[in-house]
Amino acid sequence: MMKAKTRKPKAKSKGKETPKQIAKKLEGIGDGMVADIKKGKDPSFKTQLRGRSNVEFDEDRGILTLGDKETTRNFLNIGHARKFMQTTMVAAKTRDYLNQNKTASIREVYYELKHTVPNSKENTFDGQTESDAVIVDLEHSVNTIREKLNLHANPKGTLYGDITLKDKMHHNDKFNCAKLGRGGWSVMSRLEPEEIEIVSVNAKYVLVIETEAMYERLVEEQFAKKNHCILVSTGGQAARGTRRLINRLNSEKKLPVIVFTDGDPYGWYIYSVIKQGSMALAAHSQYLACPEAQYVGMTLHDVETYGLENVTERMKDGDIKRAKEMLEYPWFKNKLWQNQLKKAIREKIRIEQQALANKSLEFVATEYLPKKIKEKDFLP
Amino acid sequence: MMKAKTRKPKAKSKGKETPKQIAKKLEGIGDGMVADIKKGKDPSFKTQLRGRSNVEFDEDRGILTLGDKETTRNFLNIGHARKFMQTTMVAAKTRDYLNQNKTASIREVYYELKHTVPNSKENTFDGQTESDAVIVDLEHSVNTIREKLNLHANPKGTLYGDITLKDKMHHNDKFNCAKLGRGGWSVMSRLEPEEIEIVSVNAKYVLVIETEAMYERLVEEQFAKKNHCILVSTGGQAARGTRRLINRLNSEKKLPVIVFTDGDPYGWYIYSVIKQGSMALAAHSQYLACPEAQYVGMTLHDVETYGLENVTERMKDGDIKRAKEMLEYPWFKNKLWQNQLKKAIREKIRIEQQALANKSLEFVATEYLPKKIKEKDFLP
Repeated sequence: MMKAKTRKPKAKSKGKETPKQIAKKLEGIGDGMVADIKKGKDPSFKTQLRGRSNVEFDEDRGILTLGDKETTRNFLNIGHARKFMQTTMVAAKTRDYLNQNKTASIREVYYELKHTVPNSKENTFDGQTESDAVIVDLEHSVNTIREKLNLHANPKGTLYGDITLKDKMHHNDKFNCAKLGRGGWSVMSRLEPEEIEIVSVNAKYVLVIETEAMYERLVEEQFAKKNHCILVSTGGQAARGTRRLINRLNSEKKLPVIVFTDGDPYGWYIYSVIKQGSMALAAHSQYLACPEAQYVGMTLHDVETYGLENVTERMKDGDIKRAKEMLEYPWFKNKLWQNQLKKAIREKIRIEQQALANKSLEFVATEYLPKKIKEKDFLP
Repeated sequence: MMKAKTRKPKAKSKGKETPKQIAKKLEGIGDGMVADIKKGKDPSFKTQLRGRSNVEFDEDRGILTLGDKETTRNFLNIGHARKFMQTTMVAAKTRDYLNQNKTASIREVYYELKHTVPNSKENTFDGQTESDAVIVDLEHSVNTIREKLNLHANPKGTLYGDITLKDKMHHNDKFNCAKLGRGGWSVMSRLEPEEIEIVSVNAKYVLVIETEAMYERLVEEQFAKKNHCILVSTGGQAARGTRRLINRLNSEKKLPVIVFTDGDPYGWYIYSVIKQGSMALAAHSQYLACPEAQYVGMTLHDVETYGLENVTERMKDGDIKRAKEMLEYPWFKNKLWQNQLKKAIREKIRIEQQALANKSLEFVATEYLPKKIKEKDFLP
């Protein structure tokens, strides 16, 4: 079970360094190892311990964080040697990326470094999970996020509304996301301020939407303009780039964030990852989470309020299992979410965003969302 | 097994009508039924027979088409009555959409029309598959595509390069897709010329890319500018909107289309759907297919040519089964594809686009693609 912990915020040391400075830090790790070897010492590498045992929920800040437990890996320990080699390979490669101003997806790094060690049958990496784990180790040991190591995950998500961005790495393109037709801007995997500047934003809040289809509905209904907001669709679980965008709209531009997903444990989990961060990336919640986010729907109470009994669906076993797990998470330990989750487990039904079309196509845009948002009828 | 057939192209009657004219056609169906009822006759509804037995491969045009077999549904036939009701419901609703200038996703139509018939326990629709089937029937009976009935599927896909679009339904926004930073334009579900105009395009060809990650790689390498092309990423199987975009770039703008997917049966199937159309939508290939498309890679021969033996993956059983099916499709009945598929079944390996990173990150952009495209080293 997840621990809840109250402690003072860490100084925000991360993220101020230039690519060259981070490259220097990576070189520092290598220099230390070389020095150890020259002294006849066993070279070692220190990183933070991951896994649930070291993940904490910081109640003051409302985000998941990684605890202080550390782990050391030694080259001359047979159990560590392989991972040690992998770590130095990825460190050297990302150092090169930073110096050459190149970026790579984490799958590309895996492929770029995979080979059979000469005169052996040993592969450097046997699968991407191995290189992914090493990347997380490196993030911790140089105290940064992968985007600042010039690595990234796959992109997903769309942005629409009166917001002007500038891509400093692409001819300083400046574009307003309300003027790209109904399609909107395809959110990149990399949303760091060093690369993408939020030039201006003219909105009262950000509405984050789980499905692309609902996003298109709200665009067609001119919801952004009529309600003075920005629309971000995640297309399911939000990608890192999209989470970083939401985080920046909230922290830099002070925009409230309102999340709108399907009414089921999967949708609620999408919300919780946007709000508190994820366990796998607990160390980076300050970049990726948005603790002030609020949840507008769908809730199972909406089913009764709006007479949607006819358009619910049965929850799958996996959903019910997930709901039971979520009951135990500290950040769902409040009355409203406990009620919601217990209701889901009891009634075994789910309700999709698009089910609101049962009232009328425009109902979601003209009644459901405006009313709930005006009355602040949110879950925390 | 799929039939191959050579016959004269049908006149392209579809797609010239205005929304009002299509609404009139839908009303015509209803008027006919009312007239039948008034005459004491059993009202009926005629549509094309679907399913593989009526799907043909038109060798002259290089696309899948639907044959001439028709089927009639009668209201007073107990086996037809439910579907008859569903058809009239969807026809009436899409007539309303057209008259009100509204559009809807096919999931929204399902939700909008789903209810329990008063004084009964009968639901109008028990699942989206029922309404989806009725939509296809209607497309056939008024000889159009769902987009022109103001219906659409979910969007997916991204567009990048020196192409200027205008969205006539959204303030006539005009934007150039090379000037939206590295993110690009998020392709809509609706790409009909009545809505989205291709104002200008400055490119020698269109490169269609299966994965978002490879798309980002090529954007970073400035591939579009250096090679004077447009990039379209499909993010897996191409959505209808993206297929329509590719179709229009080829048919309206006469741009050659080159497809670049993972080297496995799934990737090759993505290619074949872009090129010849799909069996499920055989009636609409003229809008959605692109018979002139060519395939640049990945091929299993690339593995040997570029020494990628170390970064192949084992094919799953499902992939092998799919490859065996594809051997029998008429449009794969040529020596090059038969060789490719047999090689896959024999060696049971697959090779991803991103595996080219094993040479170097930029290899795909500076050597692999330029060389193969220059030498027209394509599969048909």
